[in-house]
Amino acid sequence: MKIPFKISSPDRAIEENLLEKINFKTKPIGALGELEKIALKIGLIQQSETPSLQKPHIVVFAGDHGIALEGVSAYPQEVTYQMVLNFLGDGAAINVFTRQHNIDLTVVDAGVNHEFGEIDDARFKGEKIGFGTESFLNNPAMTDKQCELAIKKGAEIVNEIHKEGTNIIGFGEMGISNTSSASLIMSSLLEIPVLECIGKGTGLDQQGLEHKIAVLSAAQANHSLGSDDPFKILKTFGGFEMAMMCGAFLKAAELKMTIMVDGFIASASFLCAYALTPEVLEYAIFCHMSNEKGHQKLLDALDVNPVLNMNMRLGEGTGCALAYPVIKSSLHFLNEMSSFKDAGVSTKD
Amino acid sequence: MKIPFKISSPDRAIEENLLEKINFKTKPIGALGELEKIALKIGLIQQSETPSLQKPHIVVFAGDHGIALEGVSAYPQEVTYQMVLNFLGDGAAINVFTRQHNIDLTVVDAGVNHEFGEIDDARFKGEKIGFGTESFLNNPAMTDKQCELAIKKGAEIVNEIHKEGTNIIGFGEMGISNTSSASLIMSSLLEIPVLECIGKGTGLDQQGLEHKIAVLSAAQANHSLGSDDPFKILKTFGGFEMAMMCGAFLKAAELKMTIMVDGFIASASFLCAYALTPEVLEYAIFCHMSNEKGHQKLLDALDVNPVLNMNMRLGEGTGCALAYPVIKSSLHFLNEMSSFKDAGVSTKD
Repeated sequence: MKIPFKISSPDRAIEENLLEKINFKTKPIGALGELEKIALKIGLIQQSETPSLQKPHIVVFAGDHGIALEGVSAYPQEVTYQMVLNFLGDGAAINVFTRQHNIDLTVVDAGVNHEFGEIDDARFKGEKIGFGTESFLNNPAMTDKQCELAIKKGAEIVNEIHKEGTNIIGFGEMGISNTSSASLIMSSLLEIPVLECIGKGTGLDQQGLEHKIAVLSAAQANHSLGSDDPFKILKTFGGFEMAMMCGAFLKAAELKMTIMVDGFIASASFLCAYALTPEVLEYAIFCHMSNEKGHQKLLDALDVNPVLNMNMRLGEGTGCALAYPVIKSSLHFLNEMSSFKDAGVSTKD
Repeated sequence: MKIPFKISSPDRAIEENLLEKINFKTKPIGALGELEKIALKIGLIQQSETPSLQKPHIVVFAGDHGIALEGVSAYPQEVTYQMVLNFLGDGAAINVFTRQHNIDLTVVDAGVNHEFGEIDDARFKGEKIGFGTESFLNNPAMTDKQCELAIKKGAEIVNEIHKEGTNIIGFGEMGISNTSSASLIMSSLLEIPVLECIGKGTGLDQQGLEHKIAVLSAAQANHSLGSDDPFKILKTFGGFEMAMMCGAFLKAAELKMTIMVDGFIASASFLCAYALTPEVLEYAIFCHMSNEKGHQKLLDALDVNPVLNMNMRLGEGTGCALAYPVIKSSLHFLNEMSSFKDAGVSTKD
């Protein structure tokens, strides 16, 4: 696939000024830890010594997975569409946390196995690629065309949101069985044994976990993909919601937005985007370390530190929403704190 | 010393109902990780299935330390009073973060080595116990009377704030050289070798660190205290700001407030309160893991997980302020999320 995104690294000319501004605030050098790194990153992205966050937005992509029929999840497939309706009914965790922080929410039917009919809610976008993917046990989950279309749709959605003035965006997902997709994508792209990438998902017991391991090991053997074709890996093991998110990551970086990456599934989708265009990493803030096995290794492979580490494993973009005020704090300190000179405070030694 | 606080454990009768409410929200059981534990904790503290946070408040206690004259800090002592003025001038990190989250701020002169004169700012409380402590190299930092008075003042300040309707309170500190006090208190109370409790503070170089280690080792040897008298340990190695904070912790627990504990120095002060009355732990949320060496071991000894882990080492209560929106999220989910039944979402298996 030809990837139609033009992502360039932020110009580093402004870095020295940003670092000087950060270092002369009334605090020991480095004392605000990760906040200082986030402030620098967003300053570089926005090419500004006074960066700001505008109209934060979280997009939740929902899709179903053929592999669910193999019994790899603790919950039935119908939960995907029921949770979409829960998002639109304001009852889910992501609703609660986006409301708390005034973050706009968009919910996308990327390919849920349910006919939603007419939905009168501006937050809902029906972009269904299909009624769930094929089971990837023996065949690819998506056709080339479906995967390309999903990437394109994800990009279009981000483009629309960008036009409204948003400069920070996060992506969440809902899709029963999508930890299975994420595990295989991670294993394939990072060449890490699949066993190290498989966890309990929404809460499998030991027997369920062993079954999931057997199914995913068989699927991986049946396809025997290399690590060098991210598009093929995505279309083989991914979900519509993950392919759409991959396109969304790429477009957001192209548009120089600050990107909030959620948990395990979002990170696996990000990994596809990163394999296609590594510069996307320079626009990304990893919001939390999931409790799902594999996530720590995935983040280590990207050499990134997540903002939060709260043993969460919910998806929906909840990690992004919870991390948002902390990310915001980094710019408040950059823009509002006094320097040693301004405050008349003595410096070191 | 007779400790005049009556702290009782929260009644556990309500725990089952709280857990049921948490577990039937539309999410896999346990999927919100630490947020679920925080929600339970605050529900128990408030004895309510619909707990809420009222008038959040952070108190910063400032004090100077005689040991500073031994050259154990990278910054000169005058920075303590200069930072107090910076707090009142709204230029410090704690100002920025409390403003972001609408947290009230009080700044207490617990014993700064500076004559502030008249300060026309309702946020300032002059409760000076002395112009800095004595150096604890050979003698106790405080007299019994000073330490008792500081504990009493800390409690009174909390009592006043409680009267205004506050039910969640955090404590920060400012005091050049107070990581030295914290290290010796931690080492003494937990019987951990002092070398494992000493870090670079605000940014000592290797030579400075070695000097600090030599001074603190000598001080510990000169006093040879056991671990069984927390009051004696506090008065020997502590600071006025730490003793005041110790009294503040105890009073806040007595008044059944939710307590936010900041970083290394606050945790060492908390350790004194805990050694005096262990029930205080049931009211405490540990807001962040400091980058200062020793803090992880201190938190491990208390068997607590901090909310944030961002390599910060600033003090001032900044960890409390940054963690506050996350703590708040725990109650938003408890109070606002739908249950499986309400939302018509299928449950596991």
